[in-house]
Amino acid sequence: MPATATQAPRTLIPLVEAELARLVGSGEDLLEMACLDALFPTGKLLRPTLCIESARAVGGRAEPVLSFAAAIECLHVASLVHDDIVDQDPMRRGRASTAERFGLAEALLAGDGLFTAGWVAMLRTGPAGPVLEASRAVAEAMHAMCRASMLETTIREDLSCGRSAVLEVIRGKTAALTGAACQAGAILAAATPEQAEALRQYGELLGTAFQIRDDLLPYTAQDRITGKRATSDVANRQPTLPVLLAYESAGEPDRRLLTRVFHGDADPATAHRDLLDVLTRTGAIAEATRQAHRCVARAREALDGLPSTERLARLADSAVDRHR
Amino acid sequence: MPATATQAPRTLIPLVEAELARLVGSGEDLLEMACLDALFPTGKLLRPTLCIESARAVGGRAEPVLSFAAAIECLHVASLVHDDIVDQDPMRRGRASTAERFGLAEALLAGDGLFTAGWVAMLRTGPAGPVLEASRAVAEAMHAMCRASMLETTIREDLSCGRSAVLEVIRGKTAALTGAACQAGAILAAATPEQAEALRQYGELLGTAFQIRDDLLPYTAQDRITGKRATSDVANRQPTLPVLLAYESAGEPDRRLLTRVFHGDADPATAHRDLLDVLTRTGAIAEATRQAHRCVARAREALDGLPSTERLARLADSAVDRHR
Repeated sequence: MPATATQAPRTLIPLVEAELARLVGSGEDLLEMACLDALFPTGKLLRPTLCIESARAVGGRAEPVLSFAAAIECLHVASLVHDDIVDQDPMRRGRASTAERFGLAEALLAGDGLFTAGWVAMLRTGPAGPVLEASRAVAEAMHAMCRASMLETTIREDLSCGRSAVLEVIRGKTAALTGAACQAGAILAAATPEQAEALRQYGELLGTAFQIRDDLLPYTAQDRITGKRATSDVANRQPTLPVLLAYESAGEPDRRLLTRVFHGDADPATAHRDLLDVLTRTGAIAEATRQAHRCVARAREALDGLPSTERLARLADSAVDRHR
Repeated sequence: MPATATQAPRTLIPLVEAELARLVGSGEDLLEMACLDALFPTGKLLRPTLCIESARAVGGRAEPVLSFAAAIECLHVASLVHDDIVDQDPMRRGRASTAERFGLAEALLAGDGLFTAGWVAMLRTGPAGPVLEASRAVAEAMHAMCRASMLETTIREDLSCGRSAVLEVIRGKTAALTGAACQAGAILAAATPEQAEALRQYGELLGTAFQIRDDLLPYTAQDRITGKRATSDVANRQPTLPVLLAYESAGEPDRRLLTRVFHGDADPATAHRDLLDVLTRTGAIAEATRQAHRCVARAREALDGLPSTERLARLADSAVDRHR
């Protein structure tokens, strides 16, 4: 059976998980407990998988980049923990968010703890030249993520922000780090600058497709599968690409309906059902799906000429072919 | 006139400030605005000053470490911004805290933005070997800071936590980064491992003295001088070294009084006056002052044998000889 739904190849997952556990300690104090709780059970481990598979794609091995790859997952999970504070989201991966379980202050510090544990782990690897270059790429991606998160707070409830703002949020919050994960894996495996750049582009396009698919999940999958409430986007009043596409192509009555959903006090289930109707009627779901598939096609093109790309090509496909 | 109160030499301050402004951008979006607001007007710039002066102490120059030094200040200010969220403190440096001015979510992201801007700046310097080693020292200090901040949340209101817990908080929250700032400056200036280690010890001892002095300020200085409310420690119910020393040496009536202050609903001004009485009566203020001076003496000893230590010795003295 091929790996589906952006799963890491089965052999990698336990290695990355063991490394993650090693990075944050054994749960001896409250910081380690909260960090472990945020990390485990792990999610899809997309970013460490991309990092390792990018190293392999240019002829490298998994083992030398394992610690760096796990460190990237630490940074990613740190950003999720802080995101759930910003969004006041009580759920993450089908269970209570860190803020909900440990309290706001503790979750803030757990996020900081995961960030710093990630940096420590990353900077403990070698050799110095490639590690510094790869770490810099990751740091720049993390800074882009902060900028995009702040932009996201300013467009909350704003259906007229334009799809370029939403795409900028996707680029910063998701694509930047998936791109940097690929670029870093390539750099650490002594890729040429052209190969590292091609893999960064691949990773950014895959990340964009992945996020568009993620934003579509509330309208195509069941609550119990996604692990997030299907209604959480409505609750957050955060415009996503499908919603904006619907707004931009909707007639006046549907625009008014969307506006009511985003600014009104309707119960989340009703709001969600109304949204689903408009998104289907306007073709927004179909259009967003097309855009995600276009990103995947371009991601596959970016792999042209690299030595060993079969697994990365499969990962790109699975970014849009998943139900959680 | 010699530099007083841990002021950076006057010529360094504008250089560090210019570098800080360059690191976080010109305030074009909300993230940059919030970051600039947290950074400026700057505080004492103790950590960048320590970094630069440590480079000079082993024969290096200021200019090559300037960017790295400013990056450390970014990380420090990021931790202050998050600290004020954790403590729900509305004031910082005599004005509204970032959370108070911009909102909690925005302050959280501004802190993350300063962290990541710091990492980007740090990892953009060179050469690779020393930068990686120096960055690792800083990352480890930042992780120690998270651990100590979390410990701090667990001993809030706990007068029986023991002075070792309070000293652990000081080591993690202050001494680790002042030590790493010195160590990093030394490494970047091609110090020997022994010199870098001596300067790390110097920095940790100076930081400890600095923090003890900071905890004494509410009992020795005026509100308008410290820029923090004299009563904010009471409001936070955070046991500090002077308070714990008082509790440990107090008789039953004074212990009961301290407990009432920490668990009661007395207005902050009354609580602060009661605390000041007990801390004076038990000799806790005098004992904490002695401990700070002992740290300074040991910090100066750690400088023995280094090429050029005059400015660092003066900085150590000023850590305890200040009123803000």
